[in-house]
Amino acid sequence: MRAVVMHAPGDVRVEEVEPPTIVEPTDAIIRVTATCICGSDLWPYRGLERLRRPMRMGHEYVGIVEELGAEVRDLRVGDLVVGSFVASDNTCEICRAGFQSRCAHQVMMGSIGTQSDRARIPLADGTLVKVPGDPTPEQLRSLLAASDVLGTGWFAAVAAQAGPGRTVAVVGDGAVGLLAILAAERLGAERIIAMSRHPDRQALARRFGATDIVEERGDEGVARIRELTGGYGAHSTVEAVGTQESMLQAIGATRPGGHVGFVGVSHGVELDGHDLFFATVSLLGGPAPVRRFLPELIDLIMTDRIDPGVVFDLALPIEQAAEGYRAMDERRATKVLLTL
Amino acid sequence: MRAVVMHAPGDVRVEEVEPPTIVEPTDAIIRVTATCICGSDLWPYRGLERLRRPMRMGHEYVGIVEELGAEVRDLRVGDLVVGSFVASDNTCEICRAGFQSRCAHQVMMGSIGTQSDRARIPLADGTLVKVPGDPTPEQLRSLLAASDVLGTGWFAAVAAQAGPGRTVAVVGDGAVGLLAILAAERLGAERIIAMSRHPDRQALARRFGATDIVEERGDEGVARIRELTGGYGAHSTVEAVGTQESMLQAIGATRPGGHVGFVGVSHGVELDGHDLFFATVSLLGGPAPVRRFLPELIDLIMTDRIDPGVVFDLALPIEQAAEGYRAMDERRATKVLLTL
Repeated sequence: MRAVVMHAPGDVRVEEVEPPTIVEPTDAIIRVTATCICGSDLWPYRGLERLRRPMRMGHEYVGIVEELGAEVRDLRVGDLVVGSFVASDNTCEICRAGFQSRCAHQVMMGSIGTQSDRARIPLADGTLVKVPGDPTPEQLRSLLAASDVLGTGWFAAVAAQAGPGRTVAVVGDGAVGLLAILAAERLGAERIIAMSRHPDRQALARRFGATDIVEERGDEGVARIRELTGGYGAHSTVEAVGTQESMLQAIGATRPGGHVGFVGVSHGVELDGHDLFFATVSLLGGPAPVRRFLPELIDLIMTDRIDPGVVFDLALPIEQAAEGYRAMDERRATKVLLTL
Repeated sequence: MRAVVMHAPGDVRVEEVEPPTIVEPTDAIIRVTATCICGSDLWPYRGLERLRRPMRMGHEYVGIVEELGAEVRDLRVGDLVVGSFVASDNTCEICRAGFQSRCAHQVMMGSIGTQSDRARIPLADGTLVKVPGDPTPEQLRSLLAASDVLGTGWFAAVAAQAGPGRTVAVVGDGAVGLLAILAAERLGAERIIAMSRHPDRQALARRFGATDIVEERGDEGVARIRELTGGYGAHSTVEAVGTQESMLQAIGATRPGGHVGFVGVSHGVELDGHDLFFATVSLLGGPAPVRRFLPELIDLIMTDRIDPGVVFDLALPIEQAAEGYRAMDERRATKVLLTL
């Protein structure tokens, strides 16, 4: 079968590999219906994360169950399913508290690779959520977004406690940041400030519910947010980049007693304890427990109440994966869908 | 009047100074009934915080109103009052959200100094809470604890979301850590693990509600907490020291999805963003909004449901303040009360 493999920074190839087989009795094998390239795939692509060996890529997926391990109980062959980028048992204490991305038995799907025709999904009963009905192409695209970027943006908005009466600031205008805006709007936020300099992303931000756009960054961006919030800062801030600048911008933009949800995978971030102490904000971040939100997100998508799939502004057959990586690296595309 | 002045590390003197006067129409002047030495006073005493000039000391106080500015409405001369170490208007958006320690018009009482016969209290209506009735000596001691260490420990336990069904770990066995145990117990925590190596402090921890004692520190301490919690870590962890080691110990001891309340004033703490990301814990800390909790704490004290004043294990007349500082520095005393 075909699979995307990264050999070195900037060197992405589509290769023939052995198809996956059931390893554990709790596994499922799915035929991947749609997959995509993640902003986090760009870290190794840009040489900012070390590649020790050629690496299978991809951790987002919608697929159809083809084979089930002997202990899988809740799924049937032929089911259309969505899962998150972390396989989780959904039964341990951590999962039950809603933090499935840190399940006691977690398996990172990135270590398996879903930019491929088929994928093995560990802990299938805990990981996969069945999609009811027969999605339209637009719904299918949105279900794929739910697998990571929507679920991650949603978690960020929840972690930042976006809700009625709250002003939410969003740092980062990639797919996750944009979908955090959609989430904040659905969660009832009063005002949503998108920090973005790109006209097309600003347009998408407004479509998803942003009420204000701030183009300034760093200290100037923080000053502008304070100006827009009576000098206090935002109640809720989403950080969806992962750099030192974006993290300090997010914390600085938040009022004392406010909440920061940070989901950009931290690269080189160092937080000064003294500054954090006197910021007096709540900080919650990490790999998003997308599984917590999947049933609700699938329902919102299948009833056409949200359309997160519009973040995909380029669709390519998997053979052209290399061009997809280039397009995202050069910011010609926000999010690239790969068809199979 | 008499006031404690720090001239240099290790050099604390009691001097005659000018008594305070009303500066703003929202001020009150109180005659200090009881004051004390704070763990945070030891940072400059030990040379770990720079002293630019001789500094008036103290930010904890119980007192009697002697004089009121023209705009103070809710207090009367003769009222017995408690306030926190931050004067706050209690009306701005930040105060109303319960973060009075970061009030838009905050004044740090440490910049005024309450280890003295009298003190000026800015924003008196917002800052001071009247004590009903006539406290016993034990209650008076406890009211003084409410001014900072109890209120700070209480905030730490609330920030760590201590409550029913939760296992709470407390890093730090100073007065704040010990009173965070008392708070966790009152908030209904199921299990409270005190991290302490000192037999007398362990005894006080148990008196306040600790169910387990862990003597190990650092990675060993973290391993022990995990062992005691089914491998998961505590739901709620209080950090009440402020060093790199204690902060990492607190974060490491907390399960994914858990909460860390940190109230030790950070000295030299640097948090790695990547580690924090993958810890996936909520972090909330800072100068405690003691004012939020004062009415409830005063009620608990005046009805003898809590006795936080037992953390004072040494009481000295203010003339012997230097000996009080020495006793705390050498850990011969947990918390020193100064009588006037």
